Amino acid sequence: MFNIKAVSCEHSEKIQALIDGKTKPLGALGDLESLAKQMAKIQLTASSFKSPKNNQHKLELNSPHLTIFAGDHGVASEGVSIAPSEVTSQMVANFAGGGAAINVFSQQLGWQLNIVDAGILHPASSTAVLDQRLGNITQAINQQEAMTQAQVEQGFIFAKKHIAELKSTGCNIVAFGEMGIGNTTIASAIMAAIMAIPASEAVGRGTGVSDDVVLKKQQVVEQALALHRDNLTNPQAILRCLGGFEVVQITAAMLAAAENRMLIVVDGFICTAAAMLAIELNTNVKGYMIFAHCSGEQGHKKMLQWLQVKPLLNLGLRLGEGTGAALALPIIQAAAAFYNEMASFADAEVTDVT
Amino acid sequence: MFNIKAVSCEHSEKIQALIDGKTKPLGALGDLESLAKQMAKIQLTASSFKSPKNNQHKLELNSPHLTIFAGDHGVASEGVSIAPSEVTSQMVANFAGGGAAINVFSQQLGWQLNIVDAGILHPASSTAVLDQRLGNITQAINQQEAMTQAQVEQGFIFAKKHIAELKSTGCNIVAFGEMGIGNTTIASAIMAAIMAIPASEAVGRGTGVSDDVVLKKQQVVEQALALHRDNLTNPQAILRCLGGFEVVQITAAMLAAAENRMLIVVDGFICTAAAMLAIELNTNVKGYMIFAHCSGEQGHKKMLQWLQVKPLLNLGLRLGEGTGAALALPIIQAAAAFYNEMASFADAEVTDVT
Repeated sequence: MFNIKAVSCEHSEKIQALIDGKTKPLGALGDLESLAKQMAKIQLTASSFKSPKNNQHKLELNSPHLTIFAGDHGVASEGVSIAPSEVTSQMVANFAGGGAAINVFSQQLGWQLNIVDAGILHPASSTAVLDQRLGNITQAINQQEAMTQAQVEQGFIFAKKHIAELKSTGCNIVAFGEMGIGNTTIASAIMAAIMAIPASEAVGRGTGVSDDVVLKKQQVVEQALALHRDNLTNPQAILRCLGGFEVVQITAAMLAAAENRMLIVVDGFICTAAAMLAIELNTNVKGYMIFAHCSGEQGHKKMLQWLQVKPLLNLGLRLGEGTGAALALPIIQAAAAFYNEMASFADAEVTDVT
Repeated sequence: MFNIKAVSCEHSEKIQALIDGKTKPLGALGDLESLAKQMAKIQLTASSFKSPKNNQHKLELNSPHLTIFAGDHGVASEGVSIAPSEVTSQMVANFAGGGAAINVFSQQLGWQLNIVDAGILHPASSTAVLDQRLGNITQAINQQEAMTQAQVEQGFIFAKKHIAELKSTGCNIVAFGEMGIGNTTIASAIMAAIMAIPASEAVGRGTGVSDDVVLKKQQVVEQALALHRDNLTNPQAILRCLGGFEVVQITAAMLAAAENRMLIVVDGFICTAAAMLAIELNTNVKGYMIFAHCSGEQGHKKMLQWLQVKPLLNLGLRLGEGTGAALALPIIQAAAAFYNEMASFADAEVTDVT
């Protein structure tokens, strides 16, 4: 369904040599060096290294776009959240009005912000919200399949089209955020299904629920895993049985972004669940992913360990909306900037003792 | 010597209420919330809270300046570094020419960069370098006192004047960086003296030295601690016996910045050694400090634990120059931005279930 080119290791040595030639001790820029190397592998081609001078080829971060997908979840009525489903629509209105954290950070850091109604209880009235609705709300995952196969497929079509539109603006770096009361329960269920761990290890406090609600979440996830057990053998079925309208579209948007050779900045717990599904669907997508942060939601750290990735930030965020991804942009830009602009030992006439 | 006002807890509850009223779950912005609270305590006054409307009082980050202090160290000739002292002057020329990592990051992130020759082997010829020289090079700390009391005092005068000049530009947030071959040895000695730990726990690989050189560094630090044992009872004497020209001026600049109610962004291992000395000299300075990152130098994590602070970033940097402090600026700006600009539950008509 997606034709994603594996990130090439062909020029690894040349890229490493260029990084090592910069005026700094070997490896002294830490995680920024691995990040620059990842971006160079994605963006540089054989022609970038054709003549002695053309290791001047630059990394480019153009027109960064962050899209929030909002969806409502039937499981919210099982008492797994501190807030009612109505708050999803209210927060979408807040995004459209510019008052949420992600608005503030996008404005500050230079992200173009898009808001997608992927299927919420009260359709957004603002024209600032893109209509990619798959329904009003999913089914409760502990009672039946969250959605139909047709809804999953429509979500993929929407997401693919959205990414094509971003691509047409020149954008080559995207991030995704989410809003959806109940979606830490959904993400926990997906995590448990993919990692084959019990609900108790996947479920956390979400927005800050009490011990009782944590237990309720665990029960609901256990019920869902038991109910759909025979179906949880492939990622398409996991999406259908345990997913959410926003999770489906984020998963597909990640795959479509990689197909278009864009960098994908992965946010927190829910977006990492989508990233895991995307990787299950096509392992090549992982090479395009930059993991922005480790959130305060307890399962997120386990997901990142399972994926064997080190996130850039660890600020105890647990807000969603793409806020962690948004905050990582300057670090990503710094990695590109040192690769593009720092002097080499030879340029600067500094003794190279590395 | 410095008149530093303790950061007030007087308005803590009002500040916390304002943060908790924003459209997000309680505490969901993690470290950004504590950071915003710290800045609000420093910047807001009673008049900020006088009428119902004036919790609109804004945090301000004006004219961020980053000053690199460069100094040479007699101890470098004891074989504690991979590079000769000449590289300090070469790197100062690289800073002046705009080719170093800190130039790239300052340019990208909006820091005004200042370069200070605090005392290096070959005085800088560029007019871009400020002359605050205390000598050509310090004495080797394992053989005699690093410098005279007069040099320490002159360093304090220089630093105080420099901060006054930054203040006159409207600047209210400063960071410091350093360059000085041999200065991880110096910082290790200061750390060991203040924390009363053995050299082996304080010494690390610096720019990436071999096991043999690590042992040599440990020996040199042990010798220095033994030689000056009777003098290491107060921070002034530690500066004189174990310090460096850049370390003295950074310590004093931190104190002067706090006296002027500026925010101080603390960089890596060497700058944190200076911060520890500044805190020993006047404990009130600590409230103005934002710890930017945990570096890859093994002792830095221990320093931060000893200070009981959580750094914002953990990117495995070990370059110095102020690079870690520079990279933290967008996070600090994000904390101010959410405090200033995010909607409250009431503003946005979102149900507050927190």
